[in-house]
Amino acid sequence: MSDPQPVTAAILVIGDEILSGRTKDKNIGYIAEYLTNSGIDLREVRVVPDVAEEIVGAVNALRARYTYLFTTGGIGPTHDDITADCVAAAFGVGIDVDPRARAMLLERHAEADLNEARLRMARIPFGAELIENPISKAPGFMIGNVIVMAGVPSIMQAMLDRVAPRLRTGARVLAETIEAGALPEGAYASDLAAVAGAHPGVSIGSYPSMTAAGFRNQIVVRGRDADMVAAARRDIEAAVARLHAAKG
Amino acid sequence: MSDPQPVTAAILVIGDEILSGRTKDKNIGYIAEYLTNSGIDLREVRVVPDVAEEIVGAVNALRARYTYLFTTGGIGPTHDDITADCVAAAFGVGIDVDPRARAMLLERHAEADLNEARLRMARIPFGAELIENPISKAPGFMIGNVIVMAGVPSIMQAMLDRVAPRLRTGARVLAETIEAGALPEGAYASDLAAVAGAHPGVSIGSYPSMTAAGFRNQIVVRGRDADMVAAARRDIEAAVARLHAAKG
Repeated sequence: MSDPQPVTAAILVIGDEILSGRTKDKNIGYIAEYLTNSGIDLREVRVVPDVAEEIVGAVNALRARYTYLFTTGGIGPTHDDITADCVAAAFGVGIDVDPRARAMLLERHAEADLNEARLRMARIPFGAELIENPISKAPGFMIGNVIVMAGVPSIMQAMLDRVAPRLRTGARVLAETIEAGALPEGAYASDLAAVAGAHPGVSIGSYPSMTAAGFRNQIVVRGRDADMVAAARRDIEAAVARLHAAKG
Repeated sequence: MSDPQPVTAAILVIGDEILSGRTKDKNIGYIAEYLTNSGIDLREVRVVPDVAEEIVGAVNALRARYTYLFTTGGIGPTHDDITADCVAAAFGVGIDVDPRARAMLLERHAEADLNEARLRMARIPFGAELIENPISKAPGFMIGNVIVMAGVPSIMQAMLDRVAPRLRTGARVLAETIEAGALPEGAYASDLAAVAGAHPGVSIGSYPSMTAAGFRNQIVVRGRDADMVAAARRDIEAAVARLHAAKG
């Protein structure tokens, strides 16, 4: 059953490599779409560097404000992987090698290869539930409302699939797209504002994109009530048709 | 002349369409790389929805903290384009149609077509300098340390080129990549931590990626002093060569 209250979320991307531009993030868009399809409203995203006070500060700001916080990055074996320690610090709990996480690592590594660095990946804050990693075994975890995942997209995606069934979800937001084509935003903006004013139960956005043939515009109606979304859509389609006719 | 003090920046991406996953952001990675190449340290990124209090709050938090704040999105002609008004509110200044911006719009639109919606794109906070838009004419602007740009990537990129010469820049961060190949992170993590400890003037990161042949790892040394970066690089290369030899 979906919850009548909106279920909200934030994403915290952790990593110097994103801020330097060396690595182009692929997780934000993926998680955003995933959450929208799951009936969870993504309300904010932050990207912070591998600096403990920045991570702890962002975790505490975001977990207080939203139903869930999803983090990506910083849970590998090297010295710059400090996410688990920072999340433990944010919650004020201890952290140590977790026997369940250690057992998962042993599915991939021989006992003799479980050196101190690899065991870093089994360090889990006290009280967290593990999130399985079918690809490289080192788990993510969920503590309170914070979901800690890897930064490598394929692993993050597998973890998201595993944690999603444990999450509370709300009514899905329905989105309908109306093609305005080559009709310029400036030509329909006032009509669109009037439709938006008449349909306060939905949100309406206008999105231009550049194509080889010039700008093309799309109008998107979003809302949780199918009738309200359909009514706004009809009004927008009528306005667009009228403007196309006037132009042609 | 580059500044001896680090010049820092944040990016604020404004738009429901990014948070819903409908549009995949292409601006963060582009600006990140551009700033790194310009000697400006990107320290934080936030994505917020088209909600006035969220935008105003983020603008004020980020402009106080970093040398520059770059915003993208929300400066078109439709009712959901509220960035300029929010930036004016954040600075506590007025906003109105700017004659210079109006003149720019007249390069693209006939006087008779400058309806109220299009004139929204000429609304500029008092005291701002304009940033030319060679593509669709509606300008961005810079007020104080806040640079307000379009969300459409090609327009944003053109605006960034135009505003960059006006910005203070610092010494460029040098980055050197050492290929660790199939050597697992867990095998070199302790050596890497030792190198990092011995070279406090640089930052060292380890970045796995998935390839068809399995994981491949790269180690990146970053710093402003060429000698320090080179020294750390040599130590890492020696450790990687030793581990490859031990393995082979």
